[in-house]
Amino acid sequence: MAASVIEADAVVIGAGPVGLFQVFQLGLQEVHAHVIDALPYAGGQCMELYPDKPIYDIPGTPVTTGRGLTHSLLQQIAPFSAQMHFSQRVATVTRLEDGRVHLVTDGGTAFTTKALFVAAGVGAFVPRKPPVPELAAFEGHQVHYPHDADLPHAALQHAHVLVLGGDESALLAALDLAHPHTNDHRAASVTLVHRRDLFAGEPATLKRLEAARASGAIRVVAGQLTGCVATESRLQALRVDTTEGETVTLACDHVVVRLGVSPQMGPIADWGWRLERKQVPVRTEDFQSEVPGIFAVGDINVYPGKRKLILCGFHEATLAAFGAMALISPEKKVVLQYTTTSPRLHQLLGVGTQEKR
Amino acid sequence: MAASVIEADAVVIGAGPVGLFQVFQLGLQEVHAHVIDALPYAGGQCMELYPDKPIYDIPGTPVTTGRGLTHSLLQQIAPFSAQMHFSQRVATVTRLEDGRVHLVTDGGTAFTTKALFVAAGVGAFVPRKPPVPELAAFEGHQVHYPHDADLPHAALQHAHVLVLGGDESALLAALDLAHPHTNDHRAASVTLVHRRDLFAGEPATLKRLEAARASGAIRVVAGQLTGCVATESRLQALRVDTTEGETVTLACDHVVVRLGVSPQMGPIADWGWRLERKQVPVRTEDFQSEVPGIFAVGDINVYPGKRKLILCGFHEATLAAFGAMALISPEKKVVLQYTTTSPRLHQLLGVGTQEKR
Repeated sequence: MAASVIEADAVVIGAGPVGLFQVFQLGLQEVHAHVIDALPYAGGQCMELYPDKPIYDIPGTPVTTGRGLTHSLLQQIAPFSAQMHFSQRVATVTRLEDGRVHLVTDGGTAFTTKALFVAAGVGAFVPRKPPVPELAAFEGHQVHYPHDADLPHAALQHAHVLVLGGDESALLAALDLAHPHTNDHRAASVTLVHRRDLFAGEPATLKRLEAARASGAIRVVAGQLTGCVATESRLQALRVDTTEGETVTLACDHVVVRLGVSPQMGPIADWGWRLERKQVPVRTEDFQSEVPGIFAVGDINVYPGKRKLILCGFHEATLAAFGAMALISPEKKVVLQYTTTSPRLHQLLGVGTQEKR
Repeated sequence: MAASVIEADAVVIGAGPVGLFQVFQLGLQEVHAHVIDALPYAGGQCMELYPDKPIYDIPGTPVTTGRGLTHSLLQQIAPFSAQMHFSQRVATVTRLEDGRVHLVTDGGTAFTTKALFVAAGVGAFVPRKPPVPELAAFEGHQVHYPHDADLPHAALQHAHVLVLGGDESALLAALDLAHPHTNDHRAASVTLVHRRDLFAGEPATLKRLEAARASGAIRVVAGQLTGCVATESRLQALRVDTTEGETVTLACDHVVVRLGVSPQMGPIADWGWRLERKQVPVRTEDFQSEVPGIFAVGDINVYPGKRKLILCGFHEATLAAFGAMALISPEKKVVLQYTTTSPRLHQLLGVGTQEKR
């Protein structure tokens, strides 16, 4: 990998609410941050697990949703123009002799940073894979996952497509292929494969599925995926044991996997630190881990009294930002200023300072 | 004082943002709280120091004001119906042999509580007093302070009134007396006494003052208050050294003091704990002080890494609520539930539980 290395003051792993607020607190310290997330967008658990469900315990916000909180935080950090590196997972983290931290993502982006803030929550949200390991060889060509770049509609036209999954995202993918916006890109056939003939989705989506099944635009096969038929270079069919006791072979050109996402910690255990029950021990004065220069905030850390609440992560990110200044700008005297009264902070936030009366 | 003692699970001193969020977190644990504050309303520093100024660093709230934050928090804690004890200061705190804490306010209200949460910020906001100690004898009769019960308009009618102060609240008090809503209650004369002939107020208020001075409804005396003329039972006049070098004696029936408020720690140093630079040392796992049963949260506490930020107080109040459960309901197993998903918390919050899809 010959990519150049980004020299950073601060890198934040995780664009969930705590990672976003880490950007805010670093911004108030005049520190520019890079943010890495496995998802193609900000929000982490809030967007993956409960985008439309209510949250009642964000202080000063009687009710919001995962999506609402994410949007508010993005608005709040907008003045600081953090550089977002989406759809990438951190593969390796090593501490350099000069005290800085070097990290490389699976997308090949490399950073050397004075301070690393791990706000990785319960792990990186990665798509669940079907129980047929042989499919891995065809990923990106014939087997497509959520968070891949958009579905290659041109390639899917006039193709026989299997969609795996039974929730809203699977239904929308199947409907999109069966009834594309232009006839040009319509698939030759769309088969929805799910473990049983029962789907979870918005009422409107379920209604559209019903109509598509009635018209023959979508076929449903209920059963368990057990294997595939393939040559070395080409996937030809999937095998399914149906709920009716048959084994069927479903010929296909493409497989669209929509089995949901699940969080995975991945290689974090190998980053040179001691974990306690898969969590990173930190000290509470600045939420630095046992590895100097690496801070851990939010659900991923552990300390006496720890509660996995977003509002606690906000506090942790705040003290981590103050604590990290000794590494990022050792020559600078760090003083607490208030966003209500500080003209310097107003300038950073891009808001006018009221004249003092 | 023969008042009965309120038996409580939790008493919170301070109705600022952190004290209010303390109520919320106790509420999620099904603990009912009593709240005591020296001010006649909630909000603490937010309402006294910057009710209309912007706050940019409440996580998830890109901008609010002291008043806006207070209102949001009051809305958020409404389901828990905390009992508010306003316009009272805590005079004594003592730990009982059974581990509970006994406290008495200067209003004579007494509590015995399993846990005490001191969210007293920078102290109780009390009105600044003029530099004439003899006036103390006439407080409540002829000398009136902000946060007293409403001005006794009936008593002030046809009276000669001196208003001390130069800011918005002083101007509004003077205008209110000079131009009352009914002529019945108009004072015989209104004199505004301020150290110089320069006033701070809203443009509209300043304009009204100008008109009232032009019409003779309000007289202004600029100078330094130096003493008073009084019998044992009655205040007769105040003496002022004017900016023009004269000493004048201003006859008066009543004095309305509007010199602003300032926070005072008061007797907190005598509550049987060690202070560090006027702050209460706490441990970070539950923000309990060195006195078992007494927790300190927000600006009043100190621990390694402490930053005096509202958002940090929210975290502290949260861990304090969890920690205090061992004292409040030792038999109860405390588990972390999420407001997004817990039907029990939804019931406590008075919101509907969405059906699980």
